Amino acid sequence: MEDTVRVAVDAMGGDNAPREVVKGVVDAAAMNKGLSVFLIGRETEVWEELKKYQYPHGQISVVDAPEVIETAEPPVMAIRKKKKSSIVMGMNMIKQGEADAFVSAGSSGAILAGGQLIVGRIKGVERPPLAPLIPTEKGVSLLVDCGANVDARPSHLIQFARMGSIYMEHVLGVKKPRVAIVNIGAEEEKGNALVKETFPLLKNCPDIHFVGSIEAREIPHGAADVIVCEAFVGNVILKLYEGVGATMIGMVKQGMMGSLRSKIGALLVKPALKHTLSAFDASQYGGAPLLGLNGLVVKTHGNAKAQEITNSMIQCVTFKEQQINERIKKMIGTSSQEEE
Amino acid sequence: MEDTVRVAVDAMGGDNAPREVVKGVVDAAAMNKGLSVFLIGRETEVWEELKKYQYPHGQISVVDAPEVIETAEPPVMAIRKKKKSSIVMGMNMIKQGEADAFVSAGSSGAILAGGQLIVGRIKGVERPPLAPLIPTEKGVSLLVDCGANVDARPSHLIQFARMGSIYMEHVLGVKKPRVAIVNIGAEEEKGNALVKETFPLLKNCPDIHFVGSIEAREIPHGAADVIVCEAFVGNVILKLYEGVGATMIGMVKQGMMGSLRSKIGALLVKPALKHTLSAFDASQYGGAPLLGLNGLVVKTHGNAKAQEITNSMIQCVTFKEQQINERIKKMIGTSSQEEE
Repeated sequence: MEDTVRVAVDAMGGDNAPREVVKGVVDAAAMNKGLSVFLIGRETEVWEELKKYQYPHGQISVVDAPEVIETAEPPVMAIRKKKKSSIVMGMNMIKQGEADAFVSAGSSGAILAGGQLIVGRIKGVERPPLAPLIPTEKGVSLLVDCGANVDARPSHLIQFARMGSIYMEHVLGVKKPRVAIVNIGAEEEKGNALVKETFPLLKNCPDIHFVGSIEAREIPHGAADVIVCEAFVGNVILKLYEGVGATMIGMVKQGMMGSLRSKIGALLVKPALKHTLSAFDASQYGGAPLLGLNGLVVKTHGNAKAQEITNSMIQCVTFKEQQINERIKKMIGTSSQEEE
Repeated sequence: MEDTVRVAVDAMGGDNAPREVVKGVVDAAAMNKGLSVFLIGRETEVWEELKKYQYPHGQISVVDAPEVIETAEPPVMAIRKKKKSSIVMGMNMIKQGEADAFVSAGSSGAILAGGQLIVGRIKGVERPPLAPLIPTEKGVSLLVDCGANVDARPSHLIQFARMGSIYMEHVLGVKKPRVAIVNIGAEEEKGNALVKETFPLLKNCPDIHFVGSIEAREIPHGAADVIVCEAFVGNVILKLYEGVGATMIGMVKQGMMGSLRSKIGALLVKPALKHTLSAFDASQYGGAPLLGLNGLVVKTHGNAKAQEITNSMIQCVTFKEQQINERIKKMIGTSSQEEE
């Protein structure tokens, strides 16, 4: 029983809910017997989907949440008003110790706000960052922060670097993860006020492996494992990554349909190309964790398919097994003592 | 004589100088009889290249510049010390009214610093932005600012929007260019302090066509013609654009070499793919202008080939013919009066 990881899942969140969410949950439960899942959403709709599958009944239970927070709603107000929504109920389950993690493809704003207001920060964590994995030539890098709180302070960025390092080392298994700060040149004297102030602090941070500045051009080459920046820049990087990738794939596909010759060629290269491009598909790595909360909250893409939900849940298992939050607490504790 | 556009070109700047620069200059002169070119660089090296071509001798003259500013040199110091470098001499020619424009593939830092310190700003222009054209699905957008001066003020961004609109309308021929500000969401209340402060000012700016916020994801789709942001964010966008593009092209090429089947397919799709991907190749649009200076300074990529040099020079001709600086002066004059 002590090995069970209890994951609450937002059955109503995202463009493909509840269909893909339920499918992802069923797949995850089948893959991992130690998973205990709470599917939170409008009961009849969730059952309607769930009954399509053969699944281990002991592993999945449905929790009724009659309200739904829409993407367009002002997040904080939605969190306060819709107590019976899947997002608020899922986060309350973490708060009350009934779940270890919560996975949602719903409103980013509401998930970020709820993480802070309901689940709450680990004592000493100044700001819980949203830290998605982004694909690179060499694998993946953690981009931290892509959250909603902009205009960060240097102390926030230091914590991002430290929490990100713990995550990459113990969830992804990257030994001595390389930490870099996003900058507009490689030299230490370059950058805006925030970067210039943070750079020497990262350099002197004993528990991370800081490798210096990273220019945005180097990010897709996998030049660092943990990429630190404030949330405005992080958001721009994350969204541009997806935008340029999608546009180029679209243009390549369209371009190959232009002539009979290239159409035949397209049929021949298709399997190889699919394999290559899937390496650049963010969904296969699961959602983005909100780090530094009293529990784990994972935000998937709004258009998440079953696979991303499944992978996010498996991520929750590793997160708990590897005792990430205990490690963060210990790390924060160490630095608090240092500061005294 | 009054139709002649005099362009000084840095023969020593960039990875492929002087070879590609000289080739680009010869091509541009052949294409446009109204061009009068000063090739600035180490005389013997420049002549060595130039003598390979048949070219109109009256259109191209060589100016000896024995010094070269290296990319790694601290820009301001290099500008002050190396008076006989191609960058300083080219900019001095604009200052002294001997040239209308200067094109260089050399040190970005030195070009940006020299633009301000030697060529100087148009009276009333607070900050001269570096404004590259970036490729999109629909054509190109102007990304302004990608310069070296970070931590901008709202008044800078307003001027970027207005100068960028003039450039897109009169150099690129885009009627009523759509202006957007880079943001992390579409809503007016989103963003960091700078964006929140600038948004209502752009909304009330009478001489631009402001369409609101643009998320980075929408940039490759061509959702705006003039994309306004401060230089740190602009640099990140520009470099990530190039990085993700190059990485994906590399992965597609490598992926297609994996099997005999896909190798054959690759041969068939190659022409179509080349055509498609060239639309995403920034070099074909010429270099990035520094807007708001007393003259025109164009910075090309460091690895510019002849075509980019040629296109940058043609850009200089349009810039002068369309009286961009006169329009900027008039625009700045208008707003100064308004402020009184």
